Amino acid sequence: MNISVIGTGSFGTSLSMVLNDNNNRVMMYGRNQDTVQEINERHTNSRYLKDIKLSETITATASLKEAAAHAELLVLAVPVNAMRSVASDLNGYLEELNKQVLVVHVAKGLELNTYKRVSEVLEEVFDEARVSDICVLSGPSHAEEVALKQPTTVSTASLSEEGAEIIQDVFMTDYFRVYVNNDMVGVEIGGALKNIVALAVGALAGYGFGDNPKAAVITRGLHEIARLGTKLGANPLTFLGLAGMGDLIVTATSQHSRNYRCGQMLAGGLTLKEATEQMGMVVEGVNTTKAAYELSEQHDVEMPITKVLYGYLFNGISEDEAFTALMKREKTSESEGLKQLLESQIKNSK
Amino acid sequence: MNISVIGTGSFGTSLSMVLNDNNNRVMMYGRNQDTVQEINERHTNSRYLKDIKLSETITATASLKEAAAHAELLVLAVPVNAMRSVASDLNGYLEELNKQVLVVHVAKGLELNTYKRVSEVLEEVFDEARVSDICVLSGPSHAEEVALKQPTTVSTASLSEEGAEIIQDVFMTDYFRVYVNNDMVGVEIGGALKNIVALAVGALAGYGFGDNPKAAVITRGLHEIARLGTKLGANPLTFLGLAGMGDLIVTATSQHSRNYRCGQMLAGGLTLKEATEQMGMVVEGVNTTKAAYELSEQHDVEMPITKVLYGYLFNGISEDEAFTALMKREKTSESEGLKQLLESQIKNSK
Repeated sequence: MNISVIGTGSFGTSLSMVLNDNNNRVMMYGRNQDTVQEINERHTNSRYLKDIKLSETITATASLKEAAAHAELLVLAVPVNAMRSVASDLNGYLEELNKQVLVVHVAKGLELNTYKRVSEVLEEVFDEARVSDICVLSGPSHAEEVALKQPTTVSTASLSEEGAEIIQDVFMTDYFRVYVNNDMVGVEIGGALKNIVALAVGALAGYGFGDNPKAAVITRGLHEIARLGTKLGANPLTFLGLAGMGDLIVTATSQHSRNYRCGQMLAGGLTLKEATEQMGMVVEGVNTTKAAYELSEQHDVEMPITKVLYGYLFNGISEDEAFTALMKREKTSESEGLKQLLESQIKNSK
Repeated sequence: MNISVIGTGSFGTSLSMVLNDNNNRVMMYGRNQDTVQEINERHTNSRYLKDIKLSETITATASLKEAAAHAELLVLAVPVNAMRSVASDLNGYLEELNKQVLVVHVAKGLELNTYKRVSEVLEEVFDEARVSDICVLSGPSHAEEVALKQPTTVSTASLSEEGAEIIQDVFMTDYFRVYVNNDMVGVEIGGALKNIVALAVGALAGYGFGDNPKAAVITRGLHEIARLGTKLGANPLTFLGLAGMGDLIVTATSQHSRNYRCGQMLAGGLTLKEATEQMGMVVEGVNTTKAAYELSEQHDVEMPITKVLYGYLFNGISEDEAFTALMKREKTSESEGLKQLLESQIKNSK
């Protein structure tokens, strides 16, 4: 298949390698001329994937139109808040070229201000005649490890059923396993909101907390993600899967995770501005915390971890106050949150 | 409350500290005379909790009868396969003393050969007149961190409702949060079977695999635990909680975990005998793998990770074969296993 990967960040680059290994013709698009030139001439992307050699059959372009012209499938691997404008430009070129493509995005977050999922944004932006289907690919997949061909498993979902099956076929290799899930909302919400928990757990680690409190926050964090997700139309069981629990684990227990590292830096004394500058990459969890907090208020969903983190990031709550609020909750029955999920689930399945 | 903690291992010791902090009168029982003397005289337990100072109000005895005489509550913190004989001895002393106690166990495994849960063993062994209730306490709680008063969250369940509420009151401190769960089967199965996944993930790590494959095995591992647990009568949602996912995360992503370390050693070339000898502590996951494998065959439940690990531990399957079997499964829809859970859950809730 002719595939254009939009974005030359670490994940876009590693996915290009997977797609190339699977005998697709891959063209990467990047805004940065130097990166494009480096990929074409030296077959490396040293800013994002140090020490990794790309196949010579992967090409790159700085022309979005050229990428649109090449593509039967567009893989959108840009930050969430670049998604609307990139998609709009792509839609214009597809119009001009009078062609239709399949679209899959791999971004994990919600749009700033609108709090929309990425597929919602894409549906708004692309004309119906320009896309055969819109899909998401998400799961526990550190780019660095994908590039090293570590066995990796992800979920894919699409607006219609067919798109996800094509994505499964196109990406599936021996080391990159793709599972079809029919819950677009759950896969996108799981991927977006796990970054909140990763930030919180990183902050705990930076503050000197150990594995017991981290496990508590990860477990309770997944519950609150599932509570909001279910309210937004997801199947709560998706949060038990690769795009929920799987991705949460990899993000909240690994040094590779930029959200986790950002949390660590904050607890280490950096301001939010300093920490995000030092990361040099987009830390999606920061905006997602704001989005999830606002959504939880709108939909009247209890999200104690998100609420505390929101206060810590944006309202100057101190670490001591934040950790006290996180850990000292009233004694309660564990199944309370779970029962809500169960009930909504049974309702959904009828 | 007068509480006897049976077992001077790391978890029994750290729980004694929690109970003592909560103004209970704690007596520890251990078979090892030197350890008992060390606890009474130096207020340390250097074999299991190096550098930790115990309160002087915690006493220890090498007389099980004395421990039985002291107790209103018995905390059983001995390895699973010592449980039957210790409980039987305790029952005899309670008979002799003509008294009734509350019992809570904190062991994570299934009995060898019978494959019974610990509460099932205790129900068989204790005369009805000797125990007011039998409870379990389980969750993400490395003993080393509990001893350092790291914020820790656990679940408790009991055969009747009352026992769990007493356990919650007795253990609950600022840093040790106890949540009541009404699913004894789920809490015990979650605690027992997570060790299988920890062994598998440790082996992956020892073999050089990264976070993506670990997250895949943890996620799919929890699914197969939930599948078997549901067949045995558990509520599948318990596996989303502290005694399921929470404990699994802490065990399968942390160097503190002896099951994880044992898996690492095996992949590093040690035999099972060498690895368990070198650990110097019981590695419950080894027997649990056998038990879960046999149960999965009896109940016709698909448990691919358990099956591969069983072959690796007991039937000489090589690492290459094992990892290939683990990672290279047919492409499939992610929701297949989840749908089974959902259906049984809806059935259970009716």
